[in-house]
Amino acid sequence: MDVNEKYFSNITSRERAIFEGGISMGALFHQFVGTPVNIKTKEGLERTIEESFKLQPAIEDVEVKINLNDNTGFDYISLSGDMLDVRIHTVVDDVKAIIRIEYIEELNYPLMYVEEI
Amino acid sequence: MDVNEKYFSNITSRERAIFEGGISMGALFHQFVGTPVNIKTKEGLERTIEESFKLQPAIEDVEVKINLNDNTGFDYISLSGDMLDVRIHTVVDDVKAIIRIEYIEELNYPLMYVEEI
Amino acid sequence: MDVNEKYFSNITSRERAIFEGGISMGALFHQFVGTPVNIKTKEGLERTIEESFKLQPAIEDVEVKINLNDNTGFDYISLSGDMLDVRIHTVVDDVKAIIRIEYIEELNYPLMYVEEI
Amino acid sequence: MDVNEKYFSNITSRERAIFEGGISMGALFHQFVGTPVNIKTKEGLERTIEESFKLQPAIEDVEVKINLNDNTGFDYISLSGDMLDVRIHTVVDDVKAIIRIEYIEELNYPLMYVEEI
Repeated sequence: MDVNEKYFSNITSRERAIFEGGISMGALFHQFVGTPVNIKTKEGLERTIEESFKLQPAIEDVEVKINLNDNTGFDYISLSGDMLDVRIHTVVDDVKAIIRIEYIEELNYPLMYVEEI
Repeated sequence: MDVNEKYFSNITSRERAIFEGGISMGALFHQFVGTPVNIKTKEGLERTIEESFKLQPAIEDVEVKINLNDNTGFDYISLSGDMLDVRIHTVVDDVKAIIRIEYIEELNYPLMYVEEI
Repeated sequence: MDVNEKYFSNITSRERAIFEGGISMGALFHQFVGTPVNIKTKEGLERTIEESFKLQPAIEDVEVKINLNDNTGFDYISLSGDMLDVRIHTVVDDVKAIIRIEYIEELNYPLMYVEEI
Repeated sequence: MDVNEKYFSNITSRERAIFEGGISMGALFHQFVGTPVNIKTKEGLERTIEESFKLQPAIEDVEVKINLNDNTGFDYISLSGDMLDVRIHTVVDDVKAIIRIEYIEELNYPLMYVEEI
């Protein structure tokens, strides 16, 4: 069976680049929120999130930055969505997209959007 | 700040309907996989997954079916992706989309795709 | 195989009541943190968390209360550990225990402890 | 406030070593089940799980082994409980415990138990 023909012929390459990036961003957030983290484990966790989600369909690259700034008084904290600054790079045929999550001060929550396409 | 104008003017309504549905489908999978479930708690869990993800942006409706068929010998099992049959209905302006996950026999894994748009 | 004899003969009933409650409390926290929730879905989510974790070994009852007090300005928020007030009742032979998580003001984090045994 | 005196004086050091290990084992399972993994990312994920859960109270060491044996036909799979072989070493005062999860053939599921104390 040709999966692409059977299940993805109703959307364009551009739309699929957006779709696969959206899936992986939603997945990444809900998989890792809650993980214990501190300044010493931050980088290892960032790399593991990147490597894990690079495995998903159409994902070319993942860049993860965890912001711990305001949490210095604890031995460790639970990773929350507000700490995530992530770019997921997708590629489908000749279309590339970057899906972003970042905490937006004015909104007071982390927003997922299409940064580049 | 107009969030839509600032962060979403680079994609069409159709693309955003796909994007938001993709996010919620990836999120739903990774949030609930691992939850203890059996035949008695299945319906309550289905309804809670639906209600939780209807809260997310652009989501009009969520239909969740958990397939427990092959797991009758246990008191309970951990929810896995293979058991999920889910439709997420999104609406952005005048565009409606249905994002689906279902286990595909031939692929031997659960596929996420755009069922209708 | 007698699982209890083979794997649990090295601990007392009291210790196992504490062990199973600890497992379920850690599990519950990390399974559900991140779930979208608001005032309308709160009760359904509380009941589903209770029903799901009542399935685990030695769990007699689970009481879940989600505190949303400080989050009234949003359509919904991600469930965090600070919002959880949970009692897990375990029973092993003639021993009963209650494992608790609650946010402790003085500590500024949610603490898991044995409330009664 | 002395947390140990206020919240943990009703259990022995041995009981607390079991309690904290149980919490972390339940937490670890439900945090990471669902994570995309393959042979190339396996080791990084194992190390990140170890480092993350070493942060929790009373945890001295964590050893994680992910068994991928039967999943060679895929680009990647979702981590499931059956693949986990984990030892969590706890220490409270002069008491040491090892909490284990491993897949038990005869039971056909992964069992959590106290391996040594």
